[in-house]
Amino acid sequence: MTQDVETLARQIVAGSARALARGLTWVEAGGARAEALCARLYPHTGRAQVVGVTGAPGSGKSTLARALALVARARGGTVGIVAVDPSSPFSGGAILGDRIRMTDLALDPGIFIRSMATRGALGGLSRAAADAVDLMDAAGLSLVLVETVGVGQDEVDVMRLAHTVIVVSVPGLGDDVQALKAGVLEIADVHVVNKADREGADRTVAELRAMLTLLPAAEGTWMPPVLAASAAREEGIEAIADAFHAHMAHLKTSGELERRRRRMVTARVLRIAQDLVAETVLGGGGLGAEGAAGASLVDRVARRELTPHACARALLAQAAQRTSSGRTEDAVG
Amino acid sequence: MTQDVETLARQIVAGSARALARGLTWVEAGGARAEALCARLYPHTGRAQVVGVTGAPGSGKSTLARALALVARARGGTVGIVAVDPSSPFSGGAILGDRIRMTDLALDPGIFIRSMATRGALGGLSRAAADAVDLMDAAGLSLVLVETVGVGQDEVDVMRLAHTVIVVSVPGLGDDVQALKAGVLEIADVHVVNKADREGADRTVAELRAMLTLLPAAEGTWMPPVLAASAAREEGIEAIADAFHAHMAHLKTSGELERRRRRMVTARVLRIAQDLVAETVLGGGGLGAEGAAGASLVDRVARRELTPHACARALLAQAAQRTSSGRTEDAVG
Repeated sequence: MTQDVETLARQIVAGSARALARGLTWVEAGGARAEALCARLYPHTGRAQVVGVTGAPGSGKSTLARALALVARARGGTVGIVAVDPSSPFSGGAILGDRIRMTDLALDPGIFIRSMATRGALGGLSRAAADAVDLMDAAGLSLVLVETVGVGQDEVDVMRLAHTVIVVSVPGLGDDVQALKAGVLEIADVHVVNKADREGADRTVAELRAMLTLLPAAEGTWMPPVLAASAAREEGIEAIADAFHAHMAHLKTSGELERRRRRMVTARVLRIAQDLVAETVLGGGGLGAEGAAGASLVDRVARRELTPHACARALLAQAAQRTSSGRTEDAVG
Repeated sequence: MTQDVETLARQIVAGSARALARGLTWVEAGGARAEALCARLYPHTGRAQVVGVTGAPGSGKSTLARALALVARARGGTVGIVAVDPSSPFSGGAILGDRIRMTDLALDPGIFIRSMATRGALGGLSRAAADAVDLMDAAGLSLVLVETVGVGQDEVDVMRLAHTVIVVSVPGLGDDVQALKAGVLEIADVHVVNKADREGADRTVAELRAMLTLLPAAEGTWMPPVLAASAAREEGIEAIADAFHAHMAHLKTSGELERRRRRMVTARVLRIAQDLVAETVLGGGGLGAEGAAGASLVDRVARRELTPHACARALLAQAAQRTSSGRTEDAVG
């Protein structure tokens, strides 16, 4: 490990906001340096409560995360917010972002905010988000809020990093049954119907509760509460904070916490492994490189000389070979 | 290759709808049998035009796909529809599906419809969708419409299988800038503002056009048209069909088709390789299995004895070893 990494790691653990910001920049860029930093900090993680906030576009997740951060601060905690935007794999961010709304929080030294968008087409966003959570955790922030845009598989992946998942809906859900799918329903630990001052909020709360009764529930399992709130008016936020603390207490007393931690680790390791494959497939030595026969794998597949499945297996072998060589700096120690 | 696979493949190429239905069931289930079938059929693919239809939940994608199928039929083509629902990774489908709406088309022998949802937590949906497109292509259907729910990374993946991508919006987009992100904007070859009988349709069309001018555009590149339509009333559908035919013509005359084909192959191969990794990580021999030290990898990561990155590399090596052994039946020929 280089001196650089060691120094930065010490500063992050000591709680330096400037060091944390620098570390997050490393993590966003990825690569060996970021890995070395994460490996050095990994033993210092595991103390923060990680709460995911997801939901349909326009449901007010950012505003809710902001309101929850203020409540946590008022209760004496410190807060990190990781705002993840996976929907732009091409240009590194949303055209119109919601990060501006968060800038007023940036003046509070007990709140640390970071937005992350995909850099390039290599994926890696949920890996970077997980590493960012670790850095905030290692820096001693007691609550880390992970906020995502949208409700796709990416969001489900990111939410698997969290101890508690808050799914945000808005009134009028019943008009648009596609907006809330089974997958999102099933990862929710707490439901919030935001913008509850709008017409139809009561109906949406009732509909969500009815939907939840359709899910299989063994005795002693957590029943996700459905809470109405108006994040913009800062109404109903205390109850949401209470709910995610209650959920954490449930995880601990029920022994469920261990299972949840395994789920978090599994999701994370899988994502890293898949990103390593993506780096090989999309990178210099992969699909586009010319083989011994003088044609690249991609051309051979396009010409129907090779099946996509056979090509995928060849590249997987390449990826394993490429990544197994030499990296030892990420052993915990 | 078993006689079973050979027989089914011949029947599919001969255009048997019953054989195609059976093949799609194989493909949805995955495994060696599905791979063998796809390998056998792969040389028969590459003739169909593949058009992706995606957009925000509730934008009416299913209705639009249905209307486009009717127009293509009226013009003498045959149509396959693959309706993909990736947002439910847990229970194998949406609680309330839109597939019912499509049943009236099922009476036309020139239209073949298949819904696909994720089976289990192992991913594989976009692999299955790609294989389904291949089967429909090999069966001689001239147009294959791939429809997805939502606008996440999964949908972007699935859309990379298409020659032409139609992104569907609805009036009122300006109120909800999060609904349409740069990533989706950038994969769109044709924009449709559906439900154009609603208030604000003109404004949404204008806003989309304004957004498109923000994208980098070299000389001679395709400018995505923004078309108003009402799929439910079957208004504006002919113009959309004209647009995706014009796009295909552009791909051919500009030489862009070759690049598009490479993108399609790349997306597909990457997805298969990543699914192979997921099978190893989540399957029996992977993350949960006890190692020589008596503790599973997942436990060692959870206890902070091993970093997620080091664990991911170990599993990648396992995946490569597991998948490289013995499968030869997918060689083309």
